Amino acid sequence: MKELEERIKQDGRVLGEEVLKVDSFLTHQVDPDLMAAMGQRFAEVFKDAGITKVVSIEASGIAPAVFAAYALHVPMVFARKSKSITMDEELITSDVFSFTKQVTNHVSISKKFLTSADTVLVVDDFLANGQAGSGLLDIVEKAGAKIAGLGIVIEKVFQPGRKLMEERGTKVVSLARIADFVDGKVEFAEADA
Amino acid sequence: MKELEERIKQDGRVLGEEVLKVDSFLTHQVDPDLMAAMGQRFAEVFKDAGITKVVSIEASGIAPAVFAAYALHVPMVFARKSKSITMDEELITSDVFSFTKQVTNHVSISKKFLTSADTVLVVDDFLANGQAGSGLLDIVEKAGAKIAGLGIVIEKVFQPGRKLMEERGTKVVSLARIADFVDGKVEFAEADA
Repeated sequence: MKELEERIKQDGRVLGEEVLKVDSFLTHQVDPDLMAAMGQRFAEVFKDAGITKVVSIEASGIAPAVFAAYALHVPMVFARKSKSITMDEELITSDVFSFTKQVTNHVSISKKFLTSADTVLVVDDFLANGQAGSGLLDIVEKAGAKIAGLGIVIEKVFQPGRKLMEERGTKVVSLARIADFVDGKVEFAEADA
Repeated sequence: MKELEERIKQDGRVLGEEVLKVDSFLTHQVDPDLMAAMGQRFAEVFKDAGITKVVSIEASGIAPAVFAAYALHVPMVFARKSKSITMDEELITSDVFSFTKQVTNHVSISKKFLTSADTVLVVDDFLANGQAGSGLLDIVEKAGAKIAGLGIVIEKVFQPGRKLMEERGTKVVSLARIADFVDGKVEFAEADA
């Protein structure tokens, strides 16, 4: 997605070897017009997939996911993080390790919002090591729902996330794909949409 | 807002004396069409206030806030929760006590996203005891920004939040105002918009 790549070039900040900070339009401050454009792009790609729900994870997945859901006119459900290990039979849970924060989050979605009748588009802000994506796909599978695909705002191609997702048979659609960081600048691979 | 009141009547669940659970369209599963309608309503009320930013707090404030920002065509910034007391001079912080979770969250916004040039609409999902609202208003004031008002999805009139907000001179606009819970049913007071 050209508009997103331009925005990353303009406002993204490369930190060290592996980190891209996009807190000025995605992860802390959010550009709603860009979110709406991204949501429409996801909706175009998945318009014939019979999506009934968009699933994401708090916090920075919520904005892109809710606009994808808006464009598809389906509900969005976001997995909640919690460090307490409250076992509640009403919840479907999974563990997600965060490399950037070095913590494991116990994430969960209420059973009543995901069933075997659902076809799900999972949306998240980043695909890097694939931890959040795997956790969300685990939850959707545990619910018995069908997975239409994984919609990603920014993929880091040099990390193993995409390979992990594709190995489990999940279609990945990334709006921007970062091949590498060279001298603090972003080099893009061809995006999926 | 009639559409919201109808939805609360239909899908809200009253738990005990004081809790309204709206996880089927606002706090866990999110109805994007309703969020868009709410965002437009906030934008109509504040269209002449010169809003430059919408400020909210993760996680369930994000969806209504990003649609208010979308309707106003301004950026949305959400305060991040963190239990670590990392003092970073780049952050403006405040403490927010959660009655439902019985924890104090240290919430923060980066200085670079709020300045004295901003006029802010603060948006949150609930106004009950006013803890989150107070924390967000503190942050906006510390940034030297002007506060145009507080946009609330659901206000519980029988709790002191609104009084606290108005005592500090903040205009409160609630789309649904709950006067009381009677026999597990919601009784509404007149909404602000």
